[in-house]
Amino acid sequence: MINNTPFRVCVVGLQHAHGKDIAKLLFDNGADIVSVYDRDSEKVEAFKKIYPDVKILDSEEEALKEECEMYVLAGVPSERAPFGIKALYSGKNVISDKPSVTNYKDLEALKKATKESGKRYFTYFGERLRVEASLYAEEIIKSGKIGRVVSIMGWGPHRLGDETKRPMWIWDPKTAGGVITDLASHQIEQLFFYSGAKTGKVVSSRTANYSHKEHPLFEDFGDGTILFDNGVTGYFRVDWLTPKGLSTWGDGRTIILGTKGYIELRKYVDVAKSSDKNNVYWVDEEGEHYQNATGLTGYPFFKKMIDDCTHNTDTAMNQDYIFKVLELTLDAQSKAIKVE
Amino acid sequence: MINNTPFRVCVVGLQHAHGKDIAKLLFDNGADIVSVYDRDSEKVEAFKKIYPDVKILDSEEEALKEECEMYVLAGVPSERAPFGIKALYSGKNVISDKPSVTNYKDLEALKKATKESGKRYFTYFGERLRVEASLYAEEIIKSGKIGRVVSIMGWGPHRLGDETKRPMWIWDPKTAGGVITDLASHQIEQLFFYSGAKTGKVVSSRTANYSHKEHPLFEDFGDGTILFDNGVTGYFRVDWLTPKGLSTWGDGRTIILGTKGYIELRKYVDVAKSSDKNNVYWVDEEGEHYQNATGLTGYPFFKKMIDDCTHNTDTAMNQDYIFKVLELTLDAQSKAIKVE
Repeated sequence: MINNTPFRVCVVGLQHAHGKDIAKLLFDNGADIVSVYDRDSEKVEAFKKIYPDVKILDSEEEALKEECEMYVLAGVPSERAPFGIKALYSGKNVISDKPSVTNYKDLEALKKATKESGKRYFTYFGERLRVEASLYAEEIIKSGKIGRVVSIMGWGPHRLGDETKRPMWIWDPKTAGGVITDLASHQIEQLFFYSGAKTGKVVSSRTANYSHKEHPLFEDFGDGTILFDNGVTGYFRVDWLTPKGLSTWGDGRTIILGTKGYIELRKYVDVAKSSDKNNVYWVDEEGEHYQNATGLTGYPFFKKMIDDCTHNTDTAMNQDYIFKVLELTLDAQSKAIKVE
Repeated sequence: MINNTPFRVCVVGLQHAHGKDIAKLLFDNGADIVSVYDRDSEKVEAFKKIYPDVKILDSEEEALKEECEMYVLAGVPSERAPFGIKALYSGKNVISDKPSVTNYKDLEALKKATKESGKRYFTYFGERLRVEASLYAEEIIKSGKIGRVVSIMGWGPHRLGDETKRPMWIWDPKTAGGVITDLASHQIEQLFFYSGAKTGKVVSSRTANYSHKEHPLFEDFGDGTILFDNGVTGYFRVDWLTPKGLSTWGDGRTIILGTKGYIELRKYVDVAKSSDKNNVYWVDEEGEHYQNATGLTGYPFFKKMIDDCTHNTDTAMNQDYIFKVLELTLDAQSKAIKVE
């Protein structure tokens, strides 16, 4: 209950740990985590330990009948949108972990479903929405210190870790969406967000399987360039090549260039200097600056999203914006040169 | 005299300060700086203060008659290759500051001239050849610590400074070559070098004039992606947007991703942490590492180049490699999307 209004959440799919993360952030903002479904009973049991009152469901069909205000989707990536479409038509809002869609057909169906149902299909772009360095960068940009934003680079290296512990769906672009859809959706969202543009187009993109030939369909590298309608240029790069010696899962960065300064985010580590997260460096007309942003911004997206669903406002993340990010991501994935 | 063999150097063009830098590096390696020409007598006088015995020449024609083993070219970029071609046919070797060529016609003429004369046309890629961080990275790669190199990013922001003190040729791509030719030739050379490839092609590139509309032909931003024939991917970015508050002229970086680790070079500053140059960070299977590379490598290129010219060896920088870099640079410049 939030201000005497129910905000009940049903979690469908725990294949990605982000499902737990999203549930926690909703819970922290007053939502009730009422029910959960995943085909993997171990994951469900672990989830129930966090939320002892949660109802365990037996199928997606059962989940669709749940009385709730929002579904959280973090199942196999290719299965998120098909459930999400049905969920929208059942009159509920949805937040899906990224990638919340893996093909154009589902994207078109999602667009139609949001229009016809009047409900919302959010996507969890955690590398911005739940990273205070990223949110602090927004404040620096708004302050005018770096002038007009003109170009953005973002990269998101990931650790694959013990391959035998990875679910099978990760190796096949049909289920995981490909490396750009799966990982670079984060970077594309950040480029788009910081650009302040209304739309954009993919100029070029590439994918490769540099180091995991035992999984012939897998892609462990992707990059690309985007040109936004306001002239802002962007480059993104992602990979599954985080070396064993890194103290965290990936050295994710974002670099935002403006006409009067630039910002560099070292989000999860400051290599060989500090294991602190949320390292924000910027240079403006006054000098060179460092700020650790941990604790400075919180994660305002989640309260806003709940408010939007409850009061039909539009403060958290515009639906057209989300679909545009997803479309750019699918464009970058589908147009990618396959590097041999 | 080097080992009783003369190595006389004639400097033609001091429009870029790199002319002085190249002369100094040759001098430090035993060469004699015998003569100099530039249309700007102030620059010539300043040069003579460093080399009091240097002969001042009155024209390029006079320079072409000089008895010397090498010409150093750092005049207006578009004038370097035309002189270089004549210099090669006069039987002398040449080192030109980058960009050592600004159009395809001159590039083809240079190729022909090197073949027909048997002489060499070197290009001074100072952001690698005279940066110990860059040379130290080569040692890390050779050690095998980061596995096989698969992707490289490089960026080279520059400070424009007081625009009224800039020569007129900088504002016109016809004379300066455009922002990719003028600046990103450095990054393209580094991408190519670290890739270990034999050849490559430009996938996409862009130029923009974001912040200097008073010079309508000027480009203050450029970027692009390159795909090398061994599958290595590269991205470069350059700009003239270094903010006033940075403690040096530009926060140049190179990031080299391998299958087992990666290297990041913060060449000229470690923003908000240290004004030391040559900051080398790398992560491998063992851990996260930092090394300041100042004093660790020296600049072996220059002695090798002198040796190659004297003994007709090929140890410093292969001629086909240089021409391939110049061609990729012209390709990236000429194919660039003009961002509005």
